[in-house]
Amino acid sequence: MTSDIETRVRESFARQPLMTTIGARVEVVQSGHVELSLAFRGDLTQQNGFLHAGTIAALADSACGYAALTMMPPGSDVLSIEFKINMLAPASGEALIARADVLRAGRTVVVCRADVYARKSGDEKLVAAMQGTMAVRQ
Amino acid sequence: MTSDIETRVRESFARQPLMTTIGARVEVVQSGHVELSLAFRGDLTQQNGFLHAGTIAALADSACGYAALTMMPPGSDVLSIEFKINMLAPASGEALIARADVLRAGRTVVVCRADVYARKSGDEKLVAAMQGTMAVRQ
Amino acid sequence: MTSDIETRVRESFARQPLMTTIGARVEVVQSGHVELSLAFRGDLTQQNGFLHAGTIAALADSACGYAALTMMPPGSDVLSIEFKINMLAPASGEALIARADVLRAGRTVVVCRADVYARKSGDEKLVAAMQGTMAVRQ
Amino acid sequence: MTSDIETRVRESFARQPLMTTIGARVEVVQSGHVELSLAFRGDLTQQNGFLHAGTIAALADSACGYAALTMMPPGSDVLSIEFKINMLAPASGEALIARADVLRAGRTVVVCRADVYARKSGDEKLVAAMQGTMAVRQ
Repeated sequence: MTSDIETRVRESFARQPLMTTIGARVEVVQSGHVELSLAFRGDLTQQNGFLHAGTIAALADSACGYAALTMMPPGSDVLSIEFKINMLAPASGEALIARADVLRAGRTVVVCRADVYARKSGDEKLVAAMQGTMAVRQ
Repeated sequence: MTSDIETRVRESFARQPLMTTIGARVEVVQSGHVELSLAFRGDLTQQNGFLHAGTIAALADSACGYAALTMMPPGSDVLSIEFKINMLAPASGEALIARADVLRAGRTVVVCRADVYARKSGDEKLVAAMQGTMAVRQ
Repeated sequence: MTSDIETRVRESFARQPLMTTIGARVEVVQSGHVELSLAFRGDLTQQNGFLHAGTIAALADSACGYAALTMMPPGSDVLSIEFKINMLAPASGEALIARADVLRAGRTVVVCRADVYARKSGDEKLVAAMQGTMAVRQ
Repeated sequence: MTSDIETRVRESFARQPLMTTIGARVEVVQSGHVELSLAFRGDLTQQNGFLHAGTIAALADSACGYAALTMMPPGSDVLSIEFKINMLAPASGEALIARADVLRAGRTVVVCRADVYARKSGDEKLVAAMQGTMAVRQ
């Protein structure tokens, strides 16, 4: 069963060109939980050399969207209705990991949270936190 | 005066590699108001061929950040504390335009709103709305 | 037509006990636009004598909900899915006015913004800004 | 030490008239964590007999504010900069409990999350989730 969910997420993810453009990868897919990662790249940064809030938001939004998708009926598609993200610390290091969890899965909307960590020399630091609403599309 | 502000915004913008990566451009810089644009590109889309929420958020966040910067003392830098964005319609067409305005400029934080439009055959459609908080950094 | 909309809003408003508890009133009802007001009261404040963020949010949320309701088919009810609010200045003075506008009215969700002003000696000051999503319920 | 923190929270809470007006109580105070509760009352509801989103937001905002205060230097005061809240389920039952945790405590701003539960016949149900930013005031 988990493998069906994982297949759905990986297939949809592969059809998101932005994820390829920024080098994002699917790390973990479970029912109600998805983790995506991103290797640090200079072309994704802002004026101080940290990953741009837009890069962080893109990864966290996709993580939320796919966590939501794992709770939807087969054949569903997911669209972001809205999200809110707090930047907690500058994002530097080797990689970014976004871990998203479903808070509540309704029939038409799914609410998720994502925590985004920067990995540096084996340590992880919380750099951003998202809370968002995803729409279920048939 | 406006030209000093515009110079500050354009110089900082030029040092944001993500903006170059996604092909964003500075269109308008006024006191408390900034407009950025982005030509539609397939590599910035999600699974249905629309611009990814992360792309839209990146453009709107930078527009908010630079609108905030126009209200800060010379020598300041701007960092995003948080933002919230609603996706209002699928973003397709030839270009995306993010128009950001300052709601309130405080000594340490500046609050902004941005409206994001998709331009298609000369028409504009509102596709996203952001409200966010920017930090003033000396 | 406007009067049908106004009747719907006023009838629903009258059935919201919290609005009575905090002394809120309907000031303006138009298609896509609602204004609510609240007389300043000491029992609605926080520790510094300003209106509590919860009071401000309650008024702005109801204003958004009713602005959304004006765009829904007759017989619909409105529920808040989510909202985000920025506090821009301490809320003191004689009264609070929340002005809400619909940004986009969809079939299942309606997105609104509200600006909240404090009125003092005839002047108005912007004290809070909300952006939220309302659900259409049949 | 915990008792100093608890004293600070309880003293500030006692000076928030809105908390008295809605019947809120301090349940738990720990470093970085605060729980507030509210007995269900009909005068705090919306048009369907559920607790109003404004009531829920008021409780969650105060919980976030006091969780933030526990991480601030003695003599500090706390002000809400902004918050975002998702309504996850109708809030009915005997009581509402808001549990707030600090995500990151900075020198000038503290970011928190709160989960709000409705208690009914001994069970708890998650009815709302908040993420917000609090300002440190000397």
